[in-house]
Amino acid sequence: MVKEKINFNRGVPPAESFPSKKIVQCLEKAIQRDGDSILQYGSSAGYPPLIEWVAEKYGVDTNQVVMGQGSLQLLDILVKTSFGNQNPIFVEQPTYDRTLTIFRRAGVKVKGFRLESGRMDFEEIEAEIHKNGSPKFFYIIPDFQNPNGSVMPLEDRERMVRMAEEYSFTIIEDGPYRELRYGGEALPSIHQLAPKCTIHMSSLSKLISPGMRIGYMVASAETSQKIRQYAEDTYISPNLLSHAAAYEFIRNGWLDEHLTLLLNLYRKRRDALQSSLAGRLSEFADWTETQGGFFIGVFLKGESDLPNNADYKKAGLLMSRGTAFFLEGGENFIRLPFCALDENQISEGIIRLRKVLDNGV
Amino acid sequence: MVKEKINFNRGVPPAESFPSKKIVQCLEKAIQRDGDSILQYGSSAGYPPLIEWVAEKYGVDTNQVVMGQGSLQLLDILVKTSFGNQNPIFVEQPTYDRTLTIFRRAGVKVKGFRLESGRMDFEEIEAEIHKNGSPKFFYIIPDFQNPNGSVMPLEDRERMVRMAEEYSFTIIEDGPYRELRYGGEALPSIHQLAPKCTIHMSSLSKLISPGMRIGYMVASAETSQKIRQYAEDTYISPNLLSHAAAYEFIRNGWLDEHLTLLLNLYRKRRDALQSSLAGRLSEFADWTETQGGFFIGVFLKGESDLPNNADYKKAGLLMSRGTAFFLEGGENFIRLPFCALDENQISEGIIRLRKVLDNGV
Repeated sequence: MVKEKINFNRGVPPAESFPSKKIVQCLEKAIQRDGDSILQYGSSAGYPPLIEWVAEKYGVDTNQVVMGQGSLQLLDILVKTSFGNQNPIFVEQPTYDRTLTIFRRAGVKVKGFRLESGRMDFEEIEAEIHKNGSPKFFYIIPDFQNPNGSVMPLEDRERMVRMAEEYSFTIIEDGPYRELRYGGEALPSIHQLAPKCTIHMSSLSKLISPGMRIGYMVASAETSQKIRQYAEDTYISPNLLSHAAAYEFIRNGWLDEHLTLLLNLYRKRRDALQSSLAGRLSEFADWTETQGGFFIGVFLKGESDLPNNADYKKAGLLMSRGTAFFLEGGENFIRLPFCALDENQISEGIIRLRKVLDNGV
Repeated sequence: MVKEKINFNRGVPPAESFPSKKIVQCLEKAIQRDGDSILQYGSSAGYPPLIEWVAEKYGVDTNQVVMGQGSLQLLDILVKTSFGNQNPIFVEQPTYDRTLTIFRRAGVKVKGFRLESGRMDFEEIEAEIHKNGSPKFFYIIPDFQNPNGSVMPLEDRERMVRMAEEYSFTIIEDGPYRELRYGGEALPSIHQLAPKCTIHMSSLSKLISPGMRIGYMVASAETSQKIRQYAEDTYISPNLLSHAAAYEFIRNGWLDEHLTLLLNLYRKRRDALQSSLAGRLSEFADWTETQGGFFIGVFLKGESDLPNNADYKKAGLLMSRGTAFFLEGGENFIRLPFCALDENQISEGIIRLRKVLDNGV
């Protein structure tokens, strides 16, 4: 009997969470209301009413907001329009693998700072700056980090901001998971603490649907204008039809309603993963308990005899490569996304993972 | 009394042509049929059934097709993934202004060859190749050229293909207007004549709606794979919701039906512009009669005392800058898009243009 594979490979929302019928209603309403403009070429910055919603949410002017087809694309444009200078980008390590690809492809120097129990060593960062100079950007995911699941403590956020001010760098705060909190108290975002030294990125992919391809960036008016121009020269305008449908969704009060549904769904899955890990993996691994988001990051103990993809495959598991989230190392790292698996799949997945470790390590 | 401005500035389809109700039906059907996959992240190459449709239309394998958010974005990726080498890109002159921006931004050398009565001088091209070497790409718009409106004659197409084979360059054939033919006989596309030395670009923007942001590229499997990878690393996947809705539109037989409607609408407008020009501008300008597409390109006679933007504005006209379509020169060039203006606006627009010329030139 072939066992169903359990996919710990991709950090995506489950299809059963998509509010399909409501999206259809929103698309219909958006076209009725504003079809002449959303079916035409439009502003490279996105659909104006949705831009206004973002601006209000973040307490900024509308000219500080750019909305694209996912926030990754805007990050790519930011990097392309910001680098005449040779300063590096600093990142947490591990960090989001697609971001590393964007930075590397642009030929930017990237320097990583290890997350230990979810925290970087700020002495190490200061020492690096004193030795080799300030970075241009410091890219971080303070809330429910991808892939680690950790939350940056308030004192670290404050220290980060003081450093940005002292050493004149810009913090890129990637916050797509921020509203997916299943327990504990929300901390202020870096953007809330210091809007002037922060570029904030977020998205509706994790809150409504990734397929709608809606991400945004909140930056200075000057940076935003550069990105708008580059975007116009590249794709003229993003998909305003999606933007307008998302705006209808929000306007109807459905985003808050849907968020409650997601929190209830994901909290159970997070709990299932955490208790499975505690029950079966304590002697093999360390991880940070997570209060939200999509992931728990697991560091296997012992550096040798680590399982490989073939081992996982044989056990009926699909896993991402740990090394993809690191500039160097990461062989002993496992990212466990839990939102698109139900409690039984999660529990069975960890049973299989334990077996792999029993055999292999 | 303030006169309504007449906008000869943008080459867009008219809002009244958008099949809004059908698009709503298609979106609904697409989500019903395939919501779990199109509302999720997906393939960077686009929605598979729509890729199959394109592949069949062009007689190629599905792995030779990439669909993005407009074909301009794919051209940008093509240029970014193709230039380790230093060979220039050749273009017609005038040519599509946004393409020039893409090439210039990438730091590529661009060499233009003048269109005279819609034809380039092939002796000049051969001489350039003998002197300075082959281009990497030759970017052309053979059918209803943007901004000139001209059609490349069959013998020039054949010569173009022979040159590409002899001097080992790739022709980028941009064909978004190809199906919008209001008279005369269709000529084979460059891709039909020589698929192996051609990258063909096209789009559904001009046939359904630009706001859906659907463009595509037909290339070798190898080039297509490079573009797919770069696209995945940049925006993960395009808007599959739009792709799937377009697929439903085509599947229902509505594309052919809609094309007939567009042809009837645009033919009248083309006729109105051509007869207005013939009636009022013959002594002031030369232009190529157009059999299709969106534009007629007009060259004013006399190089001095040309009207400027302020002159046009005063006369109630919005015009694009002729120089934008040229690498150098173009001050005496005017692009007249006719699809988004009705016959009265077109006729009144040319009356105003004549007045400007009477006063200024």
